[in-house]
Amino acid sequence: MAEWTVGVDIGGTKIEAIVVDGAGRLQGTWREPTVADSPDSLLEAINTTVQRALTRAAVTPDHIAALGAGVPGQVDPTTGDVRLAVNLDLHNHPLGPRLQEQLGWPVFVENDIRLAALGTYSRLDPPRPRHFAYLGLGTGVAAGLVINGRLHRGANGLAGEVGHMIVRPDGPLCNCGNRGCLETFVSGPAILRRAREIWSAANGVPADVAAVFAAAEQGHHTARRVVAEMARFLARAIYTLLLAYDVERLVIGGGVSRAGSALLRPLLAEFDRFGAQSPLTALLLTRDKIQLLPADFNAGAWGAVWLARDPDAHQEVPMR
Amino acid sequence: MAEWTVGVDIGGTKIEAIVVDGAGRLQGTWREPTVADSPDSLLEAINTTVQRALTRAAVTPDHIAALGAGVPGQVDPTTGDVRLAVNLDLHNHPLGPRLQEQLGWPVFVENDIRLAALGTYSRLDPPRPRHFAYLGLGTGVAAGLVINGRLHRGANGLAGEVGHMIVRPDGPLCNCGNRGCLETFVSGPAILRRAREIWSAANGVPADVAAVFAAAEQGHHTARRVVAEMARFLARAIYTLLLAYDVERLVIGGGVSRAGSALLRPLLAEFDRFGAQSPLTALLLTRDKIQLLPADFNAGAWGAVWLARDPDAHQEVPMR
Repeated sequence: MAEWTVGVDIGGTKIEAIVVDGAGRLQGTWREPTVADSPDSLLEAINTTVQRALTRAAVTPDHIAALGAGVPGQVDPTTGDVRLAVNLDLHNHPLGPRLQEQLGWPVFVENDIRLAALGTYSRLDPPRPRHFAYLGLGTGVAAGLVINGRLHRGANGLAGEVGHMIVRPDGPLCNCGNRGCLETFVSGPAILRRAREIWSAANGVPADVAAVFAAAEQGHHTARRVVAEMARFLARAIYTLLLAYDVERLVIGGGVSRAGSALLRPLLAEFDRFGAQSPLTALLLTRDKIQLLPADFNAGAWGAVWLARDPDAHQEVPMR
Repeated sequence: MAEWTVGVDIGGTKIEAIVVDGAGRLQGTWREPTVADSPDSLLEAINTTVQRALTRAAVTPDHIAALGAGVPGQVDPTTGDVRLAVNLDLHNHPLGPRLQEQLGWPVFVENDIRLAALGTYSRLDPPRPRHFAYLGLGTGVAAGLVINGRLHRGANGLAGEVGHMIVRPDGPLCNCGNRGCLETFVSGPAILRRAREIWSAANGVPADVAAVFAAAEQGHHTARRVVAEMARFLARAIYTLLLAYDVERLVIGGGVSRAGSALLRPLLAEFDRFGAQSPLTALLLTRDKIQLLPADFNAGAWGAVWLARDPDAHQEVPMR
């Protein structure tokens, strides 16, 4: 009986597929660079990644019950259509149906951050919290929400697009067209841009976000300032999310979260400073509520697996 | 058979009770000033209000199946305890059990804004939206959320306390202890304070918020500036709520909403200005999504009725 599942995380730079057996154990994984020259070449790259993951898992396609896929963009989960995924250059593309045709299994497509939320949530020790948020800090910034144990999508599948809340109206111009969105302060590119703005040229500018956090850990004055500024915006944003959703747990993932304690320590220091001013803040913005995603856990691919294993279980309304 | 219900809205200045028959028709209503010298005198005032509403409805207590009550504060709906209601001077008070003992009916207590959300939601023409927000702009500012047709309370019953999201870190000091909370820009007292700050003394300062909006409608320069500033903060806050929850509909209630078109027109002008910058904003922040609560509709008392009629129907999890 086919009861294995495949989970695919389709990112702007890489595609990762994992193969999971009927008992929920990881049996194989594969990673390929993303090719997004055309929808056809993207589909081919996804197919290659999946086939190689199957080979790694030493399993034949007839054992696969379903495939889940996470896409960085706006998705219609009932049809599998991708409405808009800028980084994959997909616009109103029937990715789900085409993958289904190509691979022969039922395919379920969802927004990648939402699947990362599901993957992270499913990994929490029971009893799981009823309300949970995953905050992805990468090239973009967005939250995935589990409300009452189910993914909250919203009317347009845009619930959790909090990277575009405006935190300083006169701030930097954002890709979305507005100024001062959260994303322009706490995303990977934003941190790097800010570092390069204020770095002393004599010292050589940092190569990437990891270098900024590493320099801050080593006491580099400018790097510490960049991280402290970012942590202040992030702490306020997390406070806004807690006021909005009042979740039990919030996990921070995405590339920026790989900074680990170099991010977490200044962030929690902001919580303390902030909570000292206000009993309400102290009640909501607690240290134990916040965790970083373990760096070796592909939350998006695992979320895709959980979606494929039981699509209805995670929906606010039945899928079809 | 007892199938009538009573809904009570317990505010900081007045208590209003409505009596509704088994078919959901309003049969009687009464309003009394709030007396909050002590829990006992508050209970007596609630009792008086309820008894007079019954008299108005010409119904005897044995026809009443249950009572719902909305309280401005943090409530445990499973026990009926009020954890904290600053304006009523209640702290860890068993309001629900005491009312139940006094009146002899099952009593259900909930936060007033959450009940106003429920009352407003229940009044919408079917098919009702799945996701809905009520934004109360009064002395305080908070949102009540309906997610997937049910009240979203959050882990601590604080979901929707968005009046305390920080929209300008160097802004005015808020009651909560932080600076620049949304409440310090868009609540009734905030609007009046700002008007008095910048009003030309020669013209006589405005007596209340209604006077500020009325002056703005008549073209008074300073009043227009106060309203425009407030509308800008409010538009950004509503945008944040839409990014967070992606609701189909958002209704604005509370005392400030009584300004009617004097509030709505500048607010929608901000939406247009804002949406012209960003396709994402234009998609989410649409004019048809926003409505003002009709001034003659006591959303909180009606929400209390709906809660009392079918407590489980509105909960994320069963009540007891």
